[in-house]
Amino acid sequence: MQRVNTLIRERMTSENAPRIPEVTAHLIEAGGKRIRPMMTLAAARMCGYEGDAHIKLAATVEFIHTATLLHDDVVDESRQRRGRPTANLLWDNKSSVLVGDYLFARAFRLMVEPGNLQALTILADASAVIAEGEVLQLTAAQNIATTEATYFNVIRGKTAALFSAAMEVGPVIAGAPDAVTRALFAYGDALGICFQIVDDYLDYGGAGDGLGKNLGDDFREGKLTLPVIRAIAAADATERAFWERTIGKGQQADGDLDQAMALLARHGTLESTRQTALDWAGRARESLDGAPDHPLRATLADLADFVVERVN
Amino acid sequence: MQRVNTLIRERMTSENAPRIPEVTAHLIEAGGKRIRPMMTLAAARMCGYEGDAHIKLAATVEFIHTATLLHDDVVDESRQRRGRPTANLLWDNKSSVLVGDYLFARAFRLMVEPGNLQALTILADASAVIAEGEVLQLTAAQNIATTEATYFNVIRGKTAALFSAAMEVGPVIAGAPDAVTRALFAYGDALGICFQIVDDYLDYGGAGDGLGKNLGDDFREGKLTLPVIRAIAAADATERAFWERTIGKGQQADGDLDQAMALLARHGTLESTRQTALDWAGRARESLDGAPDHPLRATLADLADFVVERVN
Repeated sequence: MQRVNTLIRERMTSENAPRIPEVTAHLIEAGGKRIRPMMTLAAARMCGYEGDAHIKLAATVEFIHTATLLHDDVVDESRQRRGRPTANLLWDNKSSVLVGDYLFARAFRLMVEPGNLQALTILADASAVIAEGEVLQLTAAQNIATTEATYFNVIRGKTAALFSAAMEVGPVIAGAPDAVTRALFAYGDALGICFQIVDDYLDYGGAGDGLGKNLGDDFREGKLTLPVIRAIAAADATERAFWERTIGKGQQADGDLDQAMALLARHGTLESTRQTALDWAGRARESLDGAPDHPLRATLADLADFVVERVN
Repeated sequence: MQRVNTLIRERMTSENAPRIPEVTAHLIEAGGKRIRPMMTLAAARMCGYEGDAHIKLAATVEFIHTATLLHDDVVDESRQRRGRPTANLLWDNKSSVLVGDYLFARAFRLMVEPGNLQALTILADASAVIAEGEVLQLTAAQNIATTEATYFNVIRGKTAALFSAAMEVGPVIAGAPDAVTRALFAYGDALGICFQIVDDYLDYGGAGDGLGKNLGDDFREGKLTLPVIRAIAAADATERAFWERTIGKGQQADGDLDQAMALLARHGTLESTRQTALDWAGRARESLDGAPDHPLRATLADLADFVVERVN
């Protein structure tokens, strides 16, 4: 990971436009968990990979992630990220859009270097699927008819696609058997889904967890996440009118967030969302049955526990 | 070009998020000139290339271009493009940012298919340089101390980088000699610079040309383009105060655009900008001396004439 971090710092520079490393450093140095690049390193290593390509692909994955964060914060009009003011707030939306584009381009440049066309295809496809998931989320926002199926399409795109790609490139560059590649892909997919469900749970159930996100952001943005989708499915007519007003029409007043939380509690949907997150963590761990017998297998199982720890 | 257009239409679809092809079609079907993909096709053909990769790379180039247009219009808060309302106006900034990201990712996916690592490197580098040029333009905006050197850095990044890359991948996939690659690169670079200078000229000197851009947009956005940089360099104290107020501080009132145009006329900077555009068209044509002896050489020389025709 030290080599990955060094590479990230080397490649985020720009001779001509000093604002680029300023904005990037603000986000990169805020200390993200670097889960995705660690997954790439672990996946490559446990498949016996001994070259250097996994370092570059891990840095690529983190660059893609950082680019999407910059753009997400513009789209969501977010004010806080990783406990700091967002780049769109400190600089402006324009800088976040353009620096995000720069990081995308640098990510692609970096992933070309190892010269593995299959890994390139995986990461380029994942980038398209991420954007697709974000657009789907945008068009589903404020639509209280959104189904769980749509929700899973959204999070598989916006979050799980990069987790699964981060895993998949490991066995691919190691030349591992297809069954191993599929198992590690499935682990990343399940872990990514679990990760996003946890995030969506915490937006209603994570009071004061010091994560640098504000409680109720999703509610205010009219995002249809799992706890709300399930509460709407169980709603009576009065409750339905409440969701239609606050999320469908975006007309929110003081006390509405409390009322929303009360409805989630009444229908037990935070608890069932928590259970769904635990299920996906379990699926991630089970996928490891198809992974090589290697000490890192236990590490990845621990990572699944770590991801759900916040709701457990 | 028909095959390129078909490929573009095939690859801009999205099963999950119908908004993606809607937004993309709005821009793609508005009938851009497709100069960049034509350059790739011509460059490959004149170097004797006989495969299919040039079609995919040409579509890649147009996708990258379209993605940057979507993001540019967000950054510039533009209201018109190719004679139509912009996507950020018809939908919203969020859609433009995310659909642009999708098109970037699809561009990279498409350019992986021919499997030529050198072409991949060229196009990934060009994408980073484009974003760098845009960021540099953003940070130079409203700075009336901006030099011609900075201006050329900006336009070489935001515009010429894709023109030169579009040319360069042609000889690269054809396996042409280095001298030919350098000549065609130089042609694209000079033509791109010429193209942008013409654009910047027309923003002050192109009244009612039906291009779908509004006269004076650059002035209102505080962009330091060549006619203005030269007028500021020649300004007396009163004129300097005018530029400082209108561009430096962005305090503009009725009649200021007319006054700006009068100052450009007084110092002859529209005429000298026009002359500079013609010089770069000349350099583009001269670069063709190093191109293969092929009928398309005359076509590319005509293209240089076509680009400056609007100021000539």
